[in-house]
Amino acid sequence: MKQAVHKLEIATRGKGLYEFTPSVAEWAGRQEMRTGLVTVFCRHTSASLLIQENADPTVRTDIRAYFDQIAPDDGPYEHNYEGADDMPAHLKTALTQVQLSIPFVNGRMALGTWQGIYLFEHRVHPHRREIVLHLIGE
Amino acid sequence: MKQAVHKLEIATRGKGLYEFTPSVAEWAGRQEMRTGLVTVFCRHTSASLLIQENADPTVRTDIRAYFDQIAPDDGPYEHNYEGADDMPAHLKTALTQVQLSIPFVNGRMALGTWQGIYLFEHRVHPHRREIVLHLIGE
Amino acid sequence: MKQAVHKLEIATRGKGLYEFTPSVAEWAGRQEMRTGLVTVFCRHTSASLLIQENADPTVRTDIRAYFDQIAPDDGPYEHNYEGADDMPAHLKTALTQVQLSIPFVNGRMALGTWQGIYLFEHRVHPHRREIVLHLIGE
Repeated sequence: MKQAVHKLEIATRGKGLYEFTPSVAEWAGRQEMRTGLVTVFCRHTSASLLIQENADPTVRTDIRAYFDQIAPDDGPYEHNYEGADDMPAHLKTALTQVQLSIPFVNGRMALGTWQGIYLFEHRVHPHRREIVLHLIGE
Repeated sequence: MKQAVHKLEIATRGKGLYEFTPSVAEWAGRQEMRTGLVTVFCRHTSASLLIQENADPTVRTDIRAYFDQIAPDDGPYEHNYEGADDMPAHLKTALTQVQLSIPFVNGRMALGTWQGIYLFEHRVHPHRREIVLHLIGE
Repeated sequence: MKQAVHKLEIATRGKGLYEFTPSVAEWAGRQEMRTGLVTVFCRHTSASLLIQENADPTVRTDIRAYFDQIAPDDGPYEHNYEGADDMPAHLKTALTQVQLSIPFVNGRMALGTWQGIYLFEHRVHPHRREIVLHLIGE
């Protein structure tokens, strides 16, 4: 049994979903394991993680629009130090996840056919987001 | 230290919560481990996982009604290839989880007394849903 | 490779976010491991877990107010055995998480600078909440 850890950086250009499944898959595939557990961890409170459909791009457009609607920029928030998208970013992070763990089976992640791993950026301005990857297995 | 992996199939008959705690508990209990971590992973983007109350069935009725209300079938979605319940299914999946990890202590999952593991089906038509189970421990 | 398990109790005094990052960090730091995976599990269906900003307290106030607004105490629920905050507590738990896993790197959790681990209490009355911690690594 062994472990591997890696840090990814993802550059974002405003609100939306950024797929990075290949980065995780390639890294995990290089660790010479057959079976294990991959954990993806987002080190932020204004960006989060989602596993979502990787086929039709309108799914991502609709997801972005939906979260903008249920946690609008003009909501009655006290916290707005960093602008109108500050507090909604925290709420969208709370409503989604900052961590995903995916079984690693026969040398690859056991994702479904239509599942992709996305960083969900909630801020308007460009950011560099840090993702920590962990794999344990053999 | 060792690992075990298993695939479950759950047949669903429309929207709602389907408990499968016993399937996970029995499989994990057969792996001859005392301590570990059980991971439950749903390989879909229109069905998800929840740990919820396993006592009063009205909790499940209310959960289903609530998610239908906050992500309604007649929302302003672009993506509707597979019908009115298509995009709401993706949103409900985003708002809940596709992965759960549960500590395994003294030969059983450390669930609370009232906690059950549910598949949350978001589509109207019957589906066969694939769940991957992973256990690491000793 | 080894494992450690621990149970924490957190006393709550009504709805809100209760940080317990130091309790997890101190326990994990005592296990004499360099690399691993920390799992935090909440054994309840009316309280949940969040990783959120640990700097400005208005973030927590806004989060609490937001969840009270999207899952109000006076909603059209069937399930209300334990009072008006009963069913909303289940919904808020469904919308957030009962489990978090955090990579453990160089002897500490790989949390971002602004990330704290919170118990999100959804009930009005005081409760003692049980949290199970699991660490696997070496």
